Amino acid sequence: MAKNNLLKTLYRDSLSLLTDLYEITMAYAYWKNGMADQEAVFQLFFRKYPFQGGFAICAGMETAIEYVENFKFAEEDLAYLEGLKLFDKGFIDYLRNMKITLDIDAMEEGTPVFPYEPFLRVKGPIIQAQIMESALLCIVNFQTLIATKSARVTHAAAGDHVVEFGLRRAQGIDGAISASRAAFVGGCHSTSNVLAGKLFGIPVMGTFAHSWVMAFDHEKDSFRAFAKTFPKGTVFLIDTYDTVKGVERAIEVSKELGIEMIGVRIDSGDPEVLSKAVRKKLDAAGMTKAKIMATNELNEQVIASLKENGAPISLWGVGTHLVTAKDQPALDGVYKLCAIQDKKRFKISEEVVKTTNPGISQVRRYFDGKRYVVDMVYDIGMGASTSIVRHLKPDEKVHVEKGWSFVDLLVPMLRQGKNSYQQPTLEQMRSRTHAELAKFDPKLRKFVDPDHFFSGISENLHQYKLEAMEGIKQ
Amino acid sequence: MAKNNLLKTLYRDSLSLLTDLYEITMAYAYWKNGMADQEAVFQLFFRKYPFQGGFAICAGMETAIEYVENFKFAEEDLAYLEGLKLFDKGFIDYLRNMKITLDIDAMEEGTPVFPYEPFLRVKGPIIQAQIMESALLCIVNFQTLIATKSARVTHAAAGDHVVEFGLRRAQGIDGAISASRAAFVGGCHSTSNVLAGKLFGIPVMGTFAHSWVMAFDHEKDSFRAFAKTFPKGTVFLIDTYDTVKGVERAIEVSKELGIEMIGVRIDSGDPEVLSKAVRKKLDAAGMTKAKIMATNELNEQVIASLKENGAPISLWGVGTHLVTAKDQPALDGVYKLCAIQDKKRFKISEEVVKTTNPGISQVRRYFDGKRYVVDMVYDIGMGASTSIVRHLKPDEKVHVEKGWSFVDLLVPMLRQGKNSYQQPTLEQMRSRTHAELAKFDPKLRKFVDPDHFFSGISENLHQYKLEAMEGIKQ
Repeated sequence: MAKNNLLKTLYRDSLSLLTDLYEITMAYAYWKNGMADQEAVFQLFFRKYPFQGGFAICAGMETAIEYVENFKFAEEDLAYLEGLKLFDKGFIDYLRNMKITLDIDAMEEGTPVFPYEPFLRVKGPIIQAQIMESALLCIVNFQTLIATKSARVTHAAAGDHVVEFGLRRAQGIDGAISASRAAFVGGCHSTSNVLAGKLFGIPVMGTFAHSWVMAFDHEKDSFRAFAKTFPKGTVFLIDTYDTVKGVERAIEVSKELGIEMIGVRIDSGDPEVLSKAVRKKLDAAGMTKAKIMATNELNEQVIASLKENGAPISLWGVGTHLVTAKDQPALDGVYKLCAIQDKKRFKISEEVVKTTNPGISQVRRYFDGKRYVVDMVYDIGMGASTSIVRHLKPDEKVHVEKGWSFVDLLVPMLRQGKNSYQQPTLEQMRSRTHAELAKFDPKLRKFVDPDHFFSGISENLHQYKLEAMEGIKQ
Repeated sequence: MAKNNLLKTLYRDSLSLLTDLYEITMAYAYWKNGMADQEAVFQLFFRKYPFQGGFAICAGMETAIEYVENFKFAEEDLAYLEGLKLFDKGFIDYLRNMKITLDIDAMEEGTPVFPYEPFLRVKGPIIQAQIMESALLCIVNFQTLIATKSARVTHAAAGDHVVEFGLRRAQGIDGAISASRAAFVGGCHSTSNVLAGKLFGIPVMGTFAHSWVMAFDHEKDSFRAFAKTFPKGTVFLIDTYDTVKGVERAIEVSKELGIEMIGVRIDSGDPEVLSKAVRKKLDAAGMTKAKIMATNELNEQVIASLKENGAPISLWGVGTHLVTAKDQPALDGVYKLCAIQDKKRFKISEEVVKTTNPGISQVRRYFDGKRYVVDMVYDIGMGASTSIVRHLKPDEKVHVEKGWSFVDLLVPMLRQGKNSYQQPTLEQMRSRTHAELAKFDPKLRKFVDPDHFFSGISENLHQYKLEAMEGIKQ
């Protein structure tokens, strides 16, 4: 499988200005106040389960690491910043010569992750870590959102082939390209997006559209011409005029030309009713191997319901709902300062849920030999010696049992600004997604009212947080 | 204002493969069957009012024209296509030498547009027009969606300054960049996105985040340090620990340093309650000119309701809801074949709403001297001689009155593959949005249960369509 770095391959312009202005004004203020080199730790996490589900799937880390590793202000970026008349020339020079020395630890793409668990951690000079915020959030929020949606859609399809189809409705060019990448990580089998195929080696799929049929005076002529062009087999789009007449014509043409029919595609109408009617026609014609593909406004709920009702569909093209995550088009991921110069920091707020975890966190996932049973966020300095994991909800806790194995999920991906990690291939990330999900209680994957995995913080971190909050309030 | 072409500036990789595979397989089949040069017309339109509103705002035409004008398969694109083992070498050579000769007519960016009105029309060899489909839809669907959302948000803000703030939650890099551009076209005043500022000359805004405050032991120290760094004035973020204590500290620091306070920003809690409490504090301190900015999960409904309840907020930062169009993250725009070799085409379907308008359309907008009163889609060949405009709903029609003036909205932007149009500046597009909206009945802009403008087709086209549908059904 080909593999290209997304950003270096696709973007001509330096992406160092892909940031909110306040990152630069803060950078300037850190510099002006002699704080630029203070060592800071920022952690990226989200607060709410996306899609009212029971998990999210990490994605975009490789892209994020690529962003930071290649970060450099181009001369034209510096000229633009200077033209804003906000900054000293000395600061512009500082940015020109700034060498990225950050460390990043993150979860591997394809790892299930839960609310409030840091899944990407940045450590280094505060000026550098601050400037990266917006781009890291943009990249990781979106890819994680789409990988999660894809995991849900492919779970609903229960092993059937799912094609990501969303380019025409995607949110801009990278909204399409990154979505194709993340959809593959989350479990999709192929994409219609040729550029994503070229960049990442994702298998590409597609046959013809209504316009092909409409370019002919008769539907049957269009089928004949297409099938002759691709004698190895075709998926016929049969709903341009009338779906049942369409499948009859596709059968006639296949028999007439003596070619194998791979299948038919239905893009409008009631997919359950039509797929059953079409299946009868195909079977009656002896084409029992021909598949039925559905492609109209599908999402995980619709697919699950069609399968439950026995719709004989085994190829799914999912577009808008997948690449825009239609029912929740943004992950609420944030990037919060949690330590500076070895002092723990956290933000308290009128809203309790916006209160963050202080310190330098690691996420430990415990396995009881059969399933994952609990995640514990702990502070690296304070250690994970405790056997009690506290939930956000008061008084809910779990005792870690002897004999449970564990893995620490945040792994070093960048050290002193240099890539320190051999990223898995996209196929390996994709395998990880469903292999890891399978180790959790299946009730996590329910679409309605899923169980929530027990993810909490270590007892010692919990006690520290309580005392510190008292201190701040006083 | 600087102005860069988005695609040429930003993308290194050729974007000719930014297409669905089926566009290429169809192109191959057109070529194989000797149809490549048949003259086809495709029209781009949407079916449903976005956001359950009463209008959409066109955007992305300049980007779309840039895409087509610069379209060329790079050698590595051709090598990738050849590697798919789907196509003859002769076809790869054909693509290598293909010179784009398309004509495009489209509505100017910032023009209000309604369901079923073609707002971009492509004419030329079917092989070329087909290949452009996916990219044109991706570009125009998304920018139109965001310009529409921005027009709604800025309408709610009723003249207040609105900053687009969405980078961190945007759907990928271009999901952010294109959204900043389209949000400006739709009426936003500035962006936080520095790269969008550099590329398009959009004013950039931003001061500091919670992390700045948290980098200090005391909030007041953080305010002092920032205000000294930017002595021309600061917007203080006051909700890191306690919003009311925050504003008191901001007031103290401003007085202590003798600087003018531009304003304060509230990013959590109840914006109505907090803004009123904060306003009292500011006024009591004699800082009546200091503005209050709100930035947490805002959308057009929340802004309208805050204004209605007298919340003293006059600066609005709108992020996720704007750049992802959260309540409807995709415009359902489609690109339909409507003529080939001078024969009109349309798709009928199990779903009546998916039945398209045949022929080469123009959209005529009538003005009664005070307001726009009706839009008529007519076929260029059949002419607009009729005085009756038919609605989609049976029996609804309007008689065009003498004395009404009109304008034909689709203008030539590309001729024989070359740009034939002096695009307005982004500011001109932005001015157009609200100037044109103001010429419609204000009830169109209501957020709940808006009036729908009368947009229909000419009587002669209506009759043609009825007869043709009968013909196809028989």
